[in-house]
Amino acid sequence: MKVTEKPTGEFERTPMAFTDRITADGASGWPVEAGRYRLVISRACPWAHRVVLVRRLTGLDEAISLAVTDPVQEQVAGDAHWVFTARTGSPGGLDPVLGVHTLREAYLARDPGYDGGVSVPGLVDVPSGHLVSNDHDQLTLDLGSEWAALHREGAPELYPPALRDEIDALNAEIYRDVANGVYRAGFSPSQQTYERTVAALFARLDALEDRLTRQRFLLGGSITDADVRLFPTLVRFDAVYHGHFKCNVRKLVEYPALWAYARDLFQTPGFGDTVHLDHVRQHYYAVHRAINPTGVVAVGPDPAGWLTAHHREELGGRPFGDGTPPGPPPAIDRVPEIVPGGARPCG
Amino acid sequence: MKVTEKPTGEFERTPMAFTDRITADGASGWPVEAGRYRLVISRACPWAHRVVLVRRLTGLDEAISLAVTDPVQEQVAGDAHWVFTARTGSPGGLDPVLGVHTLREAYLARDPGYDGGVSVPGLVDVPSGHLVSNDHDQLTLDLGSEWAALHREGAPELYPPALRDEIDALNAEIYRDVANGVYRAGFSPSQQTYERTVAALFARLDALEDRLTRQRFLLGGSITDADVRLFPTLVRFDAVYHGHFKCNVRKLVEYPALWAYARDLFQTPGFGDTVHLDHVRQHYYAVHRAINPTGVVAVGPDPAGWLTAHHREELGGRPFGDGTPPGPPPAIDRVPEIVPGGARPCG
Repeated sequence: MKVTEKPTGEFERTPMAFTDRITADGASGWPVEAGRYRLVISRACPWAHRVVLVRRLTGLDEAISLAVTDPVQEQVAGDAHWVFTARTGSPGGLDPVLGVHTLREAYLARDPGYDGGVSVPGLVDVPSGHLVSNDHDQLTLDLGSEWAALHREGAPELYPPALRDEIDALNAEIYRDVANGVYRAGFSPSQQTYERTVAALFARLDALEDRLTRQRFLLGGSITDADVRLFPTLVRFDAVYHGHFKCNVRKLVEYPALWAYARDLFQTPGFGDTVHLDHVRQHYYAVHRAINPTGVVAVGPDPAGWLTAHHREELGGRPFGDGTPPGPPPAIDRVPEIVPGGARPCG
Repeated sequence: MKVTEKPTGEFERTPMAFTDRITADGASGWPVEAGRYRLVISRACPWAHRVVLVRRLTGLDEAISLAVTDPVQEQVAGDAHWVFTARTGSPGGLDPVLGVHTLREAYLARDPGYDGGVSVPGLVDVPSGHLVSNDHDQLTLDLGSEWAALHREGAPELYPPALRDEIDALNAEIYRDVANGVYRAGFSPSQQTYERTVAALFARLDALEDRLTRQRFLLGGSITDADVRLFPTLVRFDAVYHGHFKCNVRKLVEYPALWAYARDLFQTPGFGDTVHLDHVRQHYYAVHRAINPTGVVAVGPDPAGWLTAHHREELGGRPFGDGTPPGPPPAIDRVPEIVPGGARPCG
């Protein structure tokens, strides 16, 4: 994630710096190849989360290894650095595969003159150490389609050709009003921009609530790319966006269908097993000092709510279509399980 | 409200500066007298709110007039001033009765050398312009008891002698863990203090939830001083304490009994007709720049929830005991009514 401001002070995203594609035909010079690339993410980042979800659902866990950065960026000379630390599995502060401390090193390996921002996710070519792409949008699509030859047996078809127009249209609305909308609300310097953004956000959530009252997933009975893109925002909503970003018209738990839908996904293999709410909270509250000067991390709500019954199976559907759920993640990629009545200070 | 910091940076309240009492026997030199005193409040302040509630419930509206300050304090040379402005009924920026622009002027009339903080509520002697007391705790009790000669017919007994020990004990817990707890959480500079405070807050709310599952009001079937002290915090909880003060383990609306109890009180004459949630939001989000640097005011949640059915009458009880509800407030003291589907930008 990279945040900049317009001349008006309004929140705006910088364009992706590196947009090379890894395609089935290898036309870009980057061929699909098992074991060659490493996906650098933060468990906090919703854009990285989309790519992680596709990797898990399609069974690319073994083909593309995962490097998890510390949730709190290191501030060096005014720049925020995504870094590898012992607490996220990098003893000595070096990623054990890439041998670097910061993701920026992979950007510089690719372009020694690069002086822009650094964002996750970043897909890195392990042999050269070069960043291939930080374009989460294209990575989400390409892992689900161009990498099909390496998908597991029973991988779902997340972006079926017959539904692409509808998925694309829905994704555009979800990006504008929801996934990016929460950021525009949270970083808005003006009351007017904030109110307009929050109104659009909740109008969109209301529309999604209505859609999900009638069907199990966004496109019908099976999980698609649209669900993959909505989930990362929903799973962060009550923990960070509701309070920290002032998106407080309603909590997710106050939307009966959306909340049950989000729990349905959470409890589906490949979703909940990618969620690390402590990293989410630690990142947002610690890093955005401009809107949370004390850096104190809000503790609520109790994550055990994600494990409660959702009853969405009563709507029918086949989450994986003709496919099957993924197995558990490789041991090295595991996130802490949510334990009801567990370690949270205020359950 | 006056906020200072301990040497450790931990939030602490300054002692009340002026604690003269107005008593039935006039022993302090300040006799109970209709029309003599003016109560200066902010609709934002929960401590002032307690005194306003007792004034309304006991029918002292005519005997003690009300002066409402602007919800946003004026910053002058590092001091926060409660001021009178046109938007709160003081054309020309002067309170029409006291003739002053700031509450501080009444403090200085009383003690020309006073250089401490200024807090609401403040009870002012109109003839001399002197502040009599800013001790909200004592004012809450004294208006409910010492002023009995001027109470309306049918005024409830808020502090009955037989229940005083139990009320006092409960009030102490409510003050420490809830009413002042939300402030200590919100202004905590350290993660550890914050987490300890929030844990105590929600443990106390859990205990109150349990108590209110079994009975209609805190002391049984009738409203007492303890309800008067809890209500101002509950009515502000989801609008400001949950997000702005990071008290986000649960919203009030997630506590079935507490939320129904709070709505029961809100819909009782003398409670909801004293609530001005726009003043509440404008004050907290605009004034506490140290924890909300942009000053953007969060809009949620929709206040229409306060008007929904609560079904607490099924628990029986007589809200006013042997008394009766108060009539509507004098026209000059009215707050805007909540209109379902009304003017909020994101209903």
